Amino acid sequence: MTISFKDIEIAYKKIKDFITKTPLVSNDYINNLLDAEVYFKLENLQNTGSFKLRGATHKILTLSSDIIDNGVVAYSSGNHAQAVAYAAMKKNISAKIIMPKNAPKIKIENTKEYGAEVILYDAFFESREQIGNDIKEKENRSLIKPYDDIDIIAGQGTAGFEIAEDLKKLSITPDIYLCCCGGGGLIAGTSTYLKHEFPNLKSYSIEPEGFDDTKISLENKKIIKNSSKTESICDALLAPMPGDITFPINLQNLEGGISVSDEEVKKTIIFLSEHLKIVVEPGGAVAVAALLNKKINVKNKKIVVMISGGNIDLDLFSSL
Amino acid sequence: MTISFKDIEIAYKKIKDFITKTPLVSNDYINNLLDAEVYFKLENLQNTGSFKLRGATHKILTLSSDIIDNGVVAYSSGNHAQAVAYAAMKKNISAKIIMPKNAPKIKIENTKEYGAEVILYDAFFESREQIGNDIKEKENRSLIKPYDDIDIIAGQGTAGFEIAEDLKKLSITPDIYLCCCGGGGLIAGTSTYLKHEFPNLKSYSIEPEGFDDTKISLENKKIIKNSSKTESICDALLAPMPGDITFPINLQNLEGGISVSDEEVKKTIIFLSEHLKIVVEPGGAVAVAALLNKKINVKNKKIVVMISGGNIDLDLFSSL
Repeated sequence: MTISFKDIEIAYKKIKDFITKTPLVSNDYINNLLDAEVYFKLENLQNTGSFKLRGATHKILTLSSDIIDNGVVAYSSGNHAQAVAYAAMKKNISAKIIMPKNAPKIKIENTKEYGAEVILYDAFFESREQIGNDIKEKENRSLIKPYDDIDIIAGQGTAGFEIAEDLKKLSITPDIYLCCCGGGGLIAGTSTYLKHEFPNLKSYSIEPEGFDDTKISLENKKIIKNSSKTESICDALLAPMPGDITFPINLQNLEGGISVSDEEVKKTIIFLSEHLKIVVEPGGAVAVAALLNKKINVKNKKIVVMISGGNIDLDLFSSL
Repeated sequence: MTISFKDIEIAYKKIKDFITKTPLVSNDYINNLLDAEVYFKLENLQNTGSFKLRGATHKILTLSSDIIDNGVVAYSSGNHAQAVAYAAMKKNISAKIIMPKNAPKIKIENTKEYGAEVILYDAFFESREQIGNDIKEKENRSLIKPYDDIDIIAGQGTAGFEIAEDLKKLSITPDIYLCCCGGGGLIAGTSTYLKHEFPNLKSYSIEPEGFDDTKISLENKKIIKNSSKTESICDALLAPMPGDITFPINLQNLEGGISVSDEEVKKTIIFLSEHLKIVVEPGGAVAVAALLNKKINVKNKKIVVMISGGNIDLDLFSSL
């Protein structure tokens, strides 16, 4: 199962009135610092504070109304949760969302505020997939998966459509694309569209250290789980392994994977608030962390960098 | 001395390769909260972190090269300082900037980083105009005034040109325009352009309490100084009175003035980081504070709100 740029264009037509076209911005200070031309896609400015609204909206608009009327169920560390709750609210359907007890408060609160029923679980002792499937079966709800679903991938890919549209207006052909990677839905969708528009583009997945399953899987050309039980502040990017649908797409589209440390991510969040005047959550900052820490040679290159979300608890933000 | 929309279009052509076209964004959450359609102009994402780069760049590009080669001098609480330093650096000319000792650290540091010589003065005992004029005379430098200059006003007005361009693409006719006001250069320029494009637009200046000289001057149809010696966290908006050139323009363009308290501004800065995922300085947040505190009836209206800058010291930001 795969997708083409056409699927993404069709998805964009469906969802464009339900989402915000987020800006693609450049900044002289950062360009001078890196001796490069960098374009940041600000999905932290998307409604619900992350790109996840694209996929969730697309999935919900794609399901037939007799199915969707029974409501939806989803599991998520937080951004997909808010997105599904929000998209369901907009279509006036019921949503149940399974979230880890230790998810950022802002994400749990927002999900509730969007009218969803939140079911908290213990990530160490319980399986969110199990709880989700049980509710799906019992209540006849549609399960909206966070990434391993072709409609979700096409929806996330619409961020790539907007990037390409903006770059073409400026007559810019990018050399490199850096994008965060949890389950791999966003990078699978966006890299598909960008590669179609810019065939020489080199795309890289960025993950937190210890959760670099896509990097390792790309190197081994097969799906490999994270071995360690480490922790990371990048709560949005802790998927245990690449998806069965996302991985083959990423294997085809990507040059390779890069990992960044929590320390690098924290410094990046501060840097972005000082120099780009935006609020970014840890998972949303990894691609910028890779850029600033020169994990890849960007000199004299044109680079597109995804900033995927901004849902950071304010007490963590101010503690940095 | 006044300006027309044409002057602003000419200024835009001159400066557009030196500035960033900043985004105009909308946010579902805020629209629902206010029962209105709000468009935020993000000049905090401008290079140097505020709109001031527009006017400073325009002024420096307008002066003839034999004059400008002697260098420039400017006085400013910080955003104009950074802008003049930056624009001078880009043109490879010398800049001396007079700043108050108690200006935000970030503003002083950035001004130095852009290669300017910073001269600190005591705002209670010394006159920045006096120091500026002395340097101008002695060293034959061009004085780049912060707001009361027709070229500066035309430059700041280019933010209005961009707003109009974006709104027209979306086929939106705004009802209300809310803009911060210190000396009045930004609102004079932008309201001139927006009123030309949208003749029924009602524009309002927003100032900190105790520094609402434009509000009071508009009510009395003549320039009146701030009477009090109060303080405000809005360091960018503490001009003692409207400008001789800006005021007649604003008197013609504006419906009236609104003032907001420091407490309202602080809450607004937090709100904007939580819900719009952006970093805004106190002076940049006043128009949003007026909006959120419903100082004006916005129900079912289309409102453009200027967010003018993001240069806030991170220790103040995190203390909020």
